[in-house]
Amino acid sequence: MAGFSVPPGLSRRRFLSAVGAAGGAGAMFATMGALGLAPTARSSPRYEPPRRSDFALTGRAAAKVVVLGGGIAGLAAAYELAKGGYDCTVLEAADRPGGRNFTARAGTVHTDLRGDTQTAVFSDGVYLNTGPARIAQWMVTLDYCRELGVPIEVFTNVNASAFIYNEAAGMRNPVRVRTAKADMYGYVSELLAKATDRGALDGELTATDKERLLDFLRDWGAIGDKAAGRRYIGTPRRGYSVDPGAGDQAGVPLGPVPSLAQTFADGTGRYFSFDFTYDQAMLMFQPVGGMDLIPAALAAALGPHRVRLRTAVTGIANGPNDVTVDFLDRTGKPGRLTADFCVAALPPNILARIPHNLGADVQAALGAWQVGTAAKIGLEYRSRWWETDYRIYGGITNTDLDIERIWYPSHGFHGPRGLLVNYCYGEHAKSYGELRPGPRVERAVAQGVKIHGEKHRTELANAFSVAWHLMPHIEGAWAIPPLGTPAYQLLGKPAGRVYFAGDWLSHLTAWQAGAFESARLAVKHLHGRVLSG
Amino acid sequence: MAGFSVPPGLSRRRFLSAVGAAGGAGAMFATMGALGLAPTARSSPRYEPPRRSDFALTGRAAAKVVVLGGGIAGLAAAYELAKGGYDCTVLEAADRPGGRNFTARAGTVHTDLRGDTQTAVFSDGVYLNTGPARIAQWMVTLDYCRELGVPIEVFTNVNASAFIYNEAAGMRNPVRVRTAKADMYGYVSELLAKATDRGALDGELTATDKERLLDFLRDWGAIGDKAAGRRYIGTPRRGYSVDPGAGDQAGVPLGPVPSLAQTFADGTGRYFSFDFTYDQAMLMFQPVGGMDLIPAALAAALGPHRVRLRTAVTGIANGPNDVTVDFLDRTGKPGRLTADFCVAALPPNILARIPHNLGADVQAALGAWQVGTAAKIGLEYRSRWWETDYRIYGGITNTDLDIERIWYPSHGFHGPRGLLVNYCYGEHAKSYGELRPGPRVERAVAQGVKIHGEKHRTELANAFSVAWHLMPHIEGAWAIPPLGTPAYQLLGKPAGRVYFAGDWLSHLTAWQAGAFESARLAVKHLHGRVLSG
Repeated sequence: MAGFSVPPGLSRRRFLSAVGAAGGAGAMFATMGALGLAPTARSSPRYEPPRRSDFALTGRAAAKVVVLGGGIAGLAAAYELAKGGYDCTVLEAADRPGGRNFTARAGTVHTDLRGDTQTAVFSDGVYLNTGPARIAQWMVTLDYCRELGVPIEVFTNVNASAFIYNEAAGMRNPVRVRTAKADMYGYVSELLAKATDRGALDGELTATDKERLLDFLRDWGAIGDKAAGRRYIGTPRRGYSVDPGAGDQAGVPLGPVPSLAQTFADGTGRYFSFDFTYDQAMLMFQPVGGMDLIPAALAAALGPHRVRLRTAVTGIANGPNDVTVDFLDRTGKPGRLTADFCVAALPPNILARIPHNLGADVQAALGAWQVGTAAKIGLEYRSRWWETDYRIYGGITNTDLDIERIWYPSHGFHGPRGLLVNYCYGEHAKSYGELRPGPRVERAVAQGVKIHGEKHRTELANAFSVAWHLMPHIEGAWAIPPLGTPAYQLLGKPAGRVYFAGDWLSHLTAWQAGAFESARLAVKHLHGRVLSG
Repeated sequence: MAGFSVPPGLSRRRFLSAVGAAGGAGAMFATMGALGLAPTARSSPRYEPPRRSDFALTGRAAAKVVVLGGGIAGLAAAYELAKGGYDCTVLEAADRPGGRNFTARAGTVHTDLRGDTQTAVFSDGVYLNTGPARIAQWMVTLDYCRELGVPIEVFTNVNASAFIYNEAAGMRNPVRVRTAKADMYGYVSELLAKATDRGALDGELTATDKERLLDFLRDWGAIGDKAAGRRYIGTPRRGYSVDPGAGDQAGVPLGPVPSLAQTFADGTGRYFSFDFTYDQAMLMFQPVGGMDLIPAALAAALGPHRVRLRTAVTGIANGPNDVTVDFLDRTGKPGRLTADFCVAALPPNILARIPHNLGADVQAALGAWQVGTAAKIGLEYRSRWWETDYRIYGGITNTDLDIERIWYPSHGFHGPRGLLVNYCYGEHAKSYGELRPGPRVERAVAQGVKIHGEKHRTELANAFSVAWHLMPHIEGAWAIPPLGTPAYQLLGKPAGRVYFAGDWLSHLTAWQAGAFESARLAVKHLHGRVLSG
């Protein structure tokens, strides 16, 4: 994913969805769609789950459904169908439900596609959400947390006390987010106030507009008034080298203030808009105890007999009256399930490899998704030195290093230990994936030392990492949909008795919310068909 | 406090401290002090608590100390002194420790100075921090939480999903913070980009600066490029009227986009800088379960025999070799304590009323603090409709109404009930204080209905409110120090054997951190005197 330039105002993930289209008019239409400008944008009907009583007047009955894949989409589809009395069986190739929702704790074993095995040796209460890790307030994922009784807490997506470091820009030291923001907003205010005073915007601004704008800039940018030349000369918002205290300790604001040219050259402002996007704006949330409490709760609601783990699908045959699915069970023995319908909730790249009779157009369409990767490296430390030494309680440090960013833990404040997370995408993730787990950690730690100094290395206790293109049965972090194309339209409809579901069939790619919404849509279509059938 | 215009870059509270000085040169010096520009600013020595071993070589012994006031400063002073073996007794007039750190829960009884009694009937897990409620990452308060084992969680000081509403500006509807910010930043970017293109800033910007600035503005403000006239025409960052979902549901971005003139006229931008200040920037924190877990832990560490509640000081007599304190005990019976030293940790306005022999200059100095007020109105609701109906999980809605702001709860997400808090200062607090508790709630709710509609009224279950100028034994929300004046200097030193402590003797007025720091400073001075004595 590295190297893409994201258009203004669009989140990175939304943008990735957009460019997943084949380019040209397709990409344009997709972008329009993502912006809600496409004519197909419509109002969201309130979701109503299937109910057993739905069948009362029709004389029909709930059907038998086989669900392929026990990730969020598959589990949610089965969970929703079960509300209507459908007889669902979920087939999951891995030894745990959740798919990309994979939380590593003490004892978690992960063997990647190259055969490297890691066993997490984290302390009590320490975990790594290797896949999804945050939930926006508007996302349906929170509704599932409420319904399933999964407690939530704030995910600290942004912190004024965290750092920014752009090595390539020649920055000598990391700078606090608060400091970078104060300087950038100060200079932006100074420039705009000066231009306004000079009459450069007289075509755009009335006298009243100007007055309001200048009032805003003075407060927002902490600049001087007209008599003071509208100058930005620093502000206590930058932080203090000596904090205010008691008696005569007024505090010493952090200095010196870099010049305008230096501030622009450092390029710290490129990270400010992250938090403006609809997907990433604070406040964000996470389940208390690990993201996999969500699939665990879904699987528990279904019951163990309905979620068959270590069961790999080997064939899908759509028939006139039923669907037959072949698989290898946990002992390696071939098996077969016949059902009225199938919900295929596997990643498209995985689904494309399973023999089926759904047609060449389906097979071709599955190839239209662009699979991306990402890597997370979790570093457990013997002490929470970021709290004691740097007064950083959560949030994210952003860098232009290949680790890209460092997440500080959102829970366990003041506890004995804690986990920092490096989370990178695309080429950076691939290059970390090329390393064995040990050297991977060594390289990541060497980068982190540039931010935090030697404690980033010396306090390290344990590590665990996942490069998603190397994850068995998944082989990617996300699959970017070719929005607005015939391929996307095709798989939005069932192929015979086989429905497709996943975040890859949504405008919420790489978010669990996309998987939930897609599952609901497939369930709605399937149930409607059964009722009207 | 209403009506003050806060200078750019300075937090409101810091500013209040500054203007507490008598004006003119005094105010100027104070402002300089608050900005760290005053010559007295110095490096903070690392705090070392008294230790019993400190006395090993001196042949001296820990002294007996009477502490007046069981608020944070008094408790912290006693707690720190006790580490060195000092024999401390805290006299507290109220029936609970904590002072302004006062958390109301089910059963809490509060009788104000007018004789109005409220008994909180909150549900399990619902509480109102009537006084301090948030802690910045850099504040020493967090160190006490760590040391005392008081667990902490995020206090949601800012939320992109919360609202802004300026009635006086003629706003017809509340607007989400995310929307207001997108529009304001969009237009600021458009204007500055145009001015830059027009050469209005050629004196300030090199060609390279310009390129960097324009790149920044395009991303940060979500504006078009030069070919698109640098125009801001809206962005998905504003939010959606229909969220992105599965299938063809691309989502419908919120519209229409107000004009530049309307955006400036709405004045929503005045709230953006709140989160930039050193005191208020996210991430902020709170104890899990209520702020008063801090004084409870301090009191528990001291032991009940060292904290005498319902004990009102009636006289302070400084002598050549000791200090005598008169009081009325819980039965109303006069009592007397004699100690080697005294730490007077009462608010200055209360202390000024107690007969003493500390001199006319001390008495005059105590009058130099400007006492401010504030009110908090806690509204418990039968359901958390702000989560389900508005997808607001915490944070603060800002308004120009007399309730000033609405806090959404930072804990108990998805729980059955929750508490909204109105928190206002100065004249607004006084005018709410003039009402009896019932009408107070009615008036506040009528204001809140303007933001949230009728559920703000119909779902209300219980309420509890405090107007701080009506709080017995305290009679104010904070006392603004006359920084840089002889009065402030005088009470920074002991009057004979009597030391003064409180946030009112710090540059952290109205923060618990100021009380802790002041207590530490008093303890340091007292212990140094005993050791060298």
